[in-house]
Amino acid sequence: MIVILKQGVGTEIVESVAARIRELGLTPHVSRGEYRTIIGAIGEEQKILSQQLESLDGVERVVPIMRPYKLASREFHKEGSVVRVGGAAFGPGHISVIAGPCAVEDPDTLMETARAVQSAGAEVLRGGAFKPRTSPYSFQGLGEEGLKMLADVRKELNIPICTEVTNTRDVELVDRYTDVIQIGARSMQNFALLTEVGRTQKPILLKRGASAQVKEWLMSAEYILSQGNCQVILCERGIRSFETGVRFVLDVSAVPQVKQNSHLPVIVDPSHAAGKRDYVTALALAAIAAGADGLIVEVHAHPDRALCDGSQALTHEMFADLMAQIRNVAEAIGRKNITADNHE
Amino acid sequence: MIVILKQGVGTEIVESVAARIRELGLTPHVSRGEYRTIIGAIGEEQKILSQQLESLDGVERVVPIMRPYKLASREFHKEGSVVRVGGAAFGPGHISVIAGPCAVEDPDTLMETARAVQSAGAEVLRGGAFKPRTSPYSFQGLGEEGLKMLADVRKELNIPICTEVTNTRDVELVDRYTDVIQIGARSMQNFALLTEVGRTQKPILLKRGASAQVKEWLMSAEYILSQGNCQVILCERGIRSFETGVRFVLDVSAVPQVKQNSHLPVIVDPSHAAGKRDYVTALALAAIAAGADGLIVEVHAHPDRALCDGSQALTHEMFADLMAQIRNVAEAIGRKNITADNHE
Amino acid sequence: MIVILKQGVGTEIVESVAARIRELGLTPHVSRGEYRTIIGAIGEEQKILSQQLESLDGVERVVPIMRPYKLASREFHKEGSVVRVGGAAFGPGHISVIAGPCAVEDPDTLMETARAVQSAGAEVLRGGAFKPRTSPYSFQGLGEEGLKMLADVRKELNIPICTEVTNTRDVELVDRYTDVIQIGARSMQNFALLTEVGRTQKPILLKRGASAQVKEWLMSAEYILSQGNCQVILCERGIRSFETGVRFVLDVSAVPQVKQNSHLPVIVDPSHAAGKRDYVTALALAAIAAGADGLIVEVHAHPDRALCDGSQALTHEMFADLMAQIRNVAEAIGRKNITADNHE
Amino acid sequence: MIVILKQGVGTEIVESVAARIRELGLTPHVSRGEYRTIIGAIGEEQKILSQQLESLDGVERVVPIMRPYKLASREFHKEGSVVRVGGAAFGPGHISVIAGPCAVEDPDTLMETARAVQSAGAEVLRGGAFKPRTSPYSFQGLGEEGLKMLADVRKELNIPICTEVTNTRDVELVDRYTDVIQIGARSMQNFALLTEVGRTQKPILLKRGASAQVKEWLMSAEYILSQGNCQVILCERGIRSFETGVRFVLDVSAVPQVKQNSHLPVIVDPSHAAGKRDYVTALALAAIAAGADGLIVEVHAHPDRALCDGSQALTHEMFADLMAQIRNVAEAIGRKNITADNHE
Repeated sequence: MIVILKQGVGTEIVESVAARIRELGLTPHVSRGEYRTIIGAIGEEQKILSQQLESLDGVERVVPIMRPYKLASREFHKEGSVVRVGGAAFGPGHISVIAGPCAVEDPDTLMETARAVQSAGAEVLRGGAFKPRTSPYSFQGLGEEGLKMLADVRKELNIPICTEVTNTRDVELVDRYTDVIQIGARSMQNFALLTEVGRTQKPILLKRGASAQVKEWLMSAEYILSQGNCQVILCERGIRSFETGVRFVLDVSAVPQVKQNSHLPVIVDPSHAAGKRDYVTALALAAIAAGADGLIVEVHAHPDRALCDGSQALTHEMFADLMAQIRNVAEAIGRKNITADNHE
Repeated sequence: MIVILKQGVGTEIVESVAARIRELGLTPHVSRGEYRTIIGAIGEEQKILSQQLESLDGVERVVPIMRPYKLASREFHKEGSVVRVGGAAFGPGHISVIAGPCAVEDPDTLMETARAVQSAGAEVLRGGAFKPRTSPYSFQGLGEEGLKMLADVRKELNIPICTEVTNTRDVELVDRYTDVIQIGARSMQNFALLTEVGRTQKPILLKRGASAQVKEWLMSAEYILSQGNCQVILCERGIRSFETGVRFVLDVSAVPQVKQNSHLPVIVDPSHAAGKRDYVTALALAAIAAGADGLIVEVHAHPDRALCDGSQALTHEMFADLMAQIRNVAEAIGRKNITADNHE
Repeated sequence: MIVILKQGVGTEIVESVAARIRELGLTPHVSRGEYRTIIGAIGEEQKILSQQLESLDGVERVVPIMRPYKLASREFHKEGSVVRVGGAAFGPGHISVIAGPCAVEDPDTLMETARAVQSAGAEVLRGGAFKPRTSPYSFQGLGEEGLKMLADVRKELNIPICTEVTNTRDVELVDRYTDVIQIGARSMQNFALLTEVGRTQKPILLKRGASAQVKEWLMSAEYILSQGNCQVILCERGIRSFETGVRFVLDVSAVPQVKQNSHLPVIVDPSHAAGKRDYVTALALAAIAAGADGLIVEVHAHPDRALCDGSQALTHEMFADLMAQIRNVAEAIGRKNITADNHE
Repeated sequence: MIVILKQGVGTEIVESVAARIRELGLTPHVSRGEYRTIIGAIGEEQKILSQQLESLDGVERVVPIMRPYKLASREFHKEGSVVRVGGAAFGPGHISVIAGPCAVEDPDTLMETARAVQSAGAEVLRGGAFKPRTSPYSFQGLGEEGLKMLADVRKELNIPICTEVTNTRDVELVDRYTDVIQIGARSMQNFALLTEVGRTQKPILLKRGASAQVKEWLMSAEYILSQGNCQVILCERGIRSFETGVRFVLDVSAVPQVKQNSHLPVIVDPSHAAGKRDYVTALALAAIAAGADGLIVEVHAHPDRALCDGSQALTHEMFADLMAQIRNVAEAIGRKNITADNHE
C-alpha cells in the first residue's frame, strides 16, 4: 500500500512512520516529492494495517494497491469459471435462464408456472419458501412446506430448483431440498450465512446488495470461496438510487466490471431492478448484450393474485416472448443458449 | 390506499377495478377528474393488496395513505418512549452515551478504555465480540471469550454493556452476557435475527442500514416490537452516498424524522459515519443539537494498534473533551445528561 | 392532486382545506376513511398549489396525479418522434451513432478521427469547443476556433456536427456553426440556456444530469419544447452513485422509462458513464438492446495524448469493431442502422 | 501522482511508462513490489496527465496525491477567512444569519418579512428575483422589478441583501443591486457563470450542488478565486439520496470536511435540505453545533400563500424562536452571534 504523508512533515515523522511499517512486517520505500513525501509499504496488504497506519501522526491517507479479494479475482484464475446446475451452465459460452414465481404459494400454481417457464426455455426453476419481507405483517413464505412443493415439481418435471435461505438455522434444511442456494441482496453481508453456505457442496447464487460496491460483493463471494465452495454465481439486481421511476437502478456496468476483475459467472435479475413488468424485457436484453451469463426472472401465472411482488412478475406469455428475443440477442453477440440447443 | 387509473380508461375498467377492490375486502370511492379517475380504497392497507391492484389492467399506480408500521408509530403511542439500561435512560429529557472500543481485543485494553469512558461520563460500555467484517481475512472478533471479558468489566466497574449479535445461532449466548443487544447496520433487514431478538427481554439497539429509508428502518423496529419487545433504541450511523471524503454521510435529518413519526428513542453513531476521528466531535455535537437521545462512540486506548477501525476511534483524551462539549450543548437545548447529574 | 389529511383532524379542518381548494380554482372531492380523510383536488395541477396546500393546518401531504410535463409526454403525442440530422435519424425504426473526440484539439487530429468514425458508420461527428471542466486549470476548449475546425471537417466530409454550448452568451455563435446543439449533463437545469436553445431551429441533444430523476429530465425537455423547438434528443449518460469502479452508473432503465412516458427519442453515452474504455462496448450494446435510438461515443486517434478524458476514448479500431457489433444487436431486436443501409 | 502498473508487466513496459512520465515533465520514482510495480510521478499534478497515463499499456490506475484546488485550500491559507457583508461576518468567531422569502413576490410582503427577520437577528435579507424552477410553467421570479424591491427594502431598513444569479447575461444587473451574489446548487458547475461572478467585487455565496462531492465544490470555489475574487462563502444545502422523507439529505459532515481542507467560511441552508418546515430548526441547530459559520433560512409571512417553496418556509414566529435557540447553541460551543451583541 502507499502511505501519503501530510504536507510539510519533518524527517523525524517520516522515519517513525517507516519504522512502524517495518514493525508491521512490510518494507518501506520512501519517495520525497516537492510538496509531499510518500512511502510505499511493500508486502501482504491488510485493511487493518492500513487503518493502523492511517492513525499515525503525520499520515494523511493510505492507498491500497492490491485487490482485497484473492480467490474471486481473475488474477487468481485467468479463465472464466463455469458453474453447472443440471443441464444449465453459467459461464463463458453459455447463457442460462432461471425463472419462476417470487414465492411458492401452492402446488398447482407452482406446477403451472414451472411447466410454462420450462417449455419457454428456462433451465432452472426459482421460487421462494423463506421470504425476506420489509413488513412483519406480509406473507413470509411457506417454509419447509414450500420446499417440498419445489421438490415435487423438480421430480415431476426434471428441472433443477433455486431457492433462498435467509437464516443460518435453515441452511441444512434448504441444502437438503435445493439445487442452487440463493443468498438474497439483504443477506449479501450476512457473513455468518455466507460462511455456512460456503461449507455446502451446492452452487450459490449470490445477489449484490442494493448499496454494495462491486468490490464488496466480490469480498462476499470470497467468504464463500474461502470455505472451499467454488461454485458461486454472482447476480446483479439493481442498486439503490434517487430515481423513483424504478424500484432499483440496474447497474449493467457491473457485468463488464465483474468480468474484468473476477473469473466468476455473473447473471442479472431484471425483475427486482425494474419493480414493474413493463421494463423487464428491456433490462433483460440489455443484460445479455452486456455479457451477462444468464438471467433470473420472476414469472407468475396470475400476477394480480400473487402474494408477493406481483407488479414485477411477467405473465407466461410475456416470458415466452422474452426468451425468443434473448436467443436472438445472444446469437448476435456470439453466445448460445444451451436450452435452445437442447430444443433443437 | 389510492388507485390512480391510466388516462382515458373506460367505465368498464373503472368498474372492474372497483369490483376487485371490493373482493379484497376494501371499500372503493371513485372520483372522476377531467383527465384521470382515481379510486380511494378504504380499509386495512397491505402492501400485497397494493401490488395486486397495480397489476390490474388500466391501473397506473397505487399510492398508500397509511404508514406501514403501527407499533413503532407515534400515532400508536403519543408520548416518547424511554428505554432504561442500568443508570442510563434513552428518551425524552435524557441524553446518555455509550462508548468503548470497536472490538474487544484483550482484557487489559478493554478495562483501560472502560475506566476512561466511564470516568468521562459514558453510562454504557460498547465492545464487539462478533464482528461483521467485509473481508474473511480480517479479525472476526473473539466470540464468547470476548463476551466474558465484557462481563468481567461490567462486574468490576458496575457499567452495563452493549454488544452486537449477527447470527440467530448466537442470540441466546449474547443475551446471557449483555445488557443491550446491538443489531448492526448490515443486519437491519436480517428479519430472522430481528424476530429472535424480539423474543428476548433485553433492550435492542437497532442501527439503520446504510441504504435504508427511515420508513424501512421503522419497519425493522416493527419486527422487534411485534414480538413483544418494546425496548428498541434506534441508531442513525450514516448512509451510503457518492461523497468520498467521509465513510458514510450522517443523516442528521433522520433524528427529527424519527421523532415526528415514531415514539422510539433515537441515538447517533458519529464514528462509523465519519470514518475518521477528526470529524467525530462535530458530528456528535450536531446530533445532540438536532435532538438525538444519545450517542454511541468508538474509543480506543491506542487507535494505531486497534485491530478494527482504528482510524475512527477517539483517544481517551478526545473522548473526555467531547463529553464536556456535549454537556454544554445538551444544556443549551434544555436537555440534561444523567451522568452529569450523577457526577455532581 | 390528492390531499391527505392528518389522522384525527376534525370536520372544521376538512372544511377549511376544501374551501382553500375551491379558492385555488380546483374542485374538492372528500373521501372519509376509518383512519384518514383524503380530498381529491380536481383541476389544473401546479406545484405551487401543491406546496400551498401542504402548508395548511391538518394536511399531512399532497400527492400529484398528473405528470408535470405535457409537451414531452407520450399522452400528448402518441407516436414516437423522429429527429433527423443530415442523413441520420433518431427515433423509432432507426439507430444512429454520433462519434468523435471529447474536445476539438487541432485540425489534423480532428480530421483523422472524423474520417475514421464516418468510415465505421457514424453519421454525426461530435467534438467539444467549449468544455465544462471541473478545474479552472484544465484545458477549456478552443472556443470559436474549434467551431471553425468542426465546420471545415463538415464541409470536407459532408458529415453533420454536434457540439456543446454552456453559456447563454454563446448560443448564437454555436448555432451558426453546428447541426446539433448539445446541452451537457451539468447544464440540464440551466434553465436560461434551455430557453435560449429552445428558440433556435436546431435539434438539441439534452443530456440527463448526473443526479436528475427521469421526470426532471423530461421537465428540462419541456423548457425547450415550450419555446417551440420540438427537435429534442434525450441522452442518458450515467448517474452518480456510491460505486467507484465506474465514473457514473449507466441507468439503462432510463431507456424504457423514457419510451413509456415520452415520445422523444433517447440515445445513450456509454463513454462518460464508464469513464474507462474497457467497459464502453458492453454498455453500448446494452443500450441498443434496451431500445435506445442511438449512441454518442468518444473516439480519439491517440487516447494517451488526448487533452480531455483520454481514459474513456475508444481507439479507431475499437470503434470500428463496436459498430459491427451494434449492427448485429440492432438487427437481432428488429431495428436497422441507417448507415449500414447507406453502406450497402 | 502514483502510477500503479498491472500485475506481471515486464521491464519494457515499466521503462516506457517511466519515459512517458519524463516526457510529460515529471520525475518517475520506480518501486518494485512482489506483485506490483508502482511509479511515483513527482511534479505539477494535472488531471489531464493522469488521464493520459491511465491510457498507457500496462497501467492499471493512477492515484493523485495533491489536492486539485490550491487557492481554496487550507494549505494555501492557514487561517480561516472571514467574509464581511455590512455588519455581518462569516468566518471564525462569528455566526451570521441570512433570512427571507424564497422569492420576492411584492413590496409589502417583502418588507413585512424583512422587518421580522431583522428584528429577530438576521443580518442579511435573502430573496430571489431570478428563480431556477424545475417547471417552465412555475413562477420564474420578478427579474429586475424584484431586484428593485430588494433595493428599496435595503435602503429603508439598512440591511444588506443576497440574491441569486442564474444567467451570465444577468451578472452585471444583479451585481448593481445586491450585496451578496448567490450561485445556486444547480449552477455550481456553470463554469461560465462562476468565472463572471469571479470578476465582480462582491461576496459570492456558493451553494453545493445536490450531487457534488466536497472536493468538486471546492474546485468550483477555485474558479471564482482564480479570477481574483476571494470573498467566497460556501453553503451546504443537502445532497440527493434515496431517502424520500426529506427533500435532500443535509450533509452536516461537509462542515468539518470544509473546515479541515479549506480556509473558506461555510454556512448551511436547512430549508432546502429539509423541504418541510417541521425539520428546519433541528437541522439549523445541528449545523451550528457542527461548526457552521452561519445559516441561510427561508421565512415567509404566509407560507400557505407563497409563490415558491411554501412548504419549507418558517413563519415569522418560528424564525424568532429559532434565532433564540441558535444563540444558546452558539454560546455553548464558544461562538458568538454578532447581532446578538449588537442588540445588547
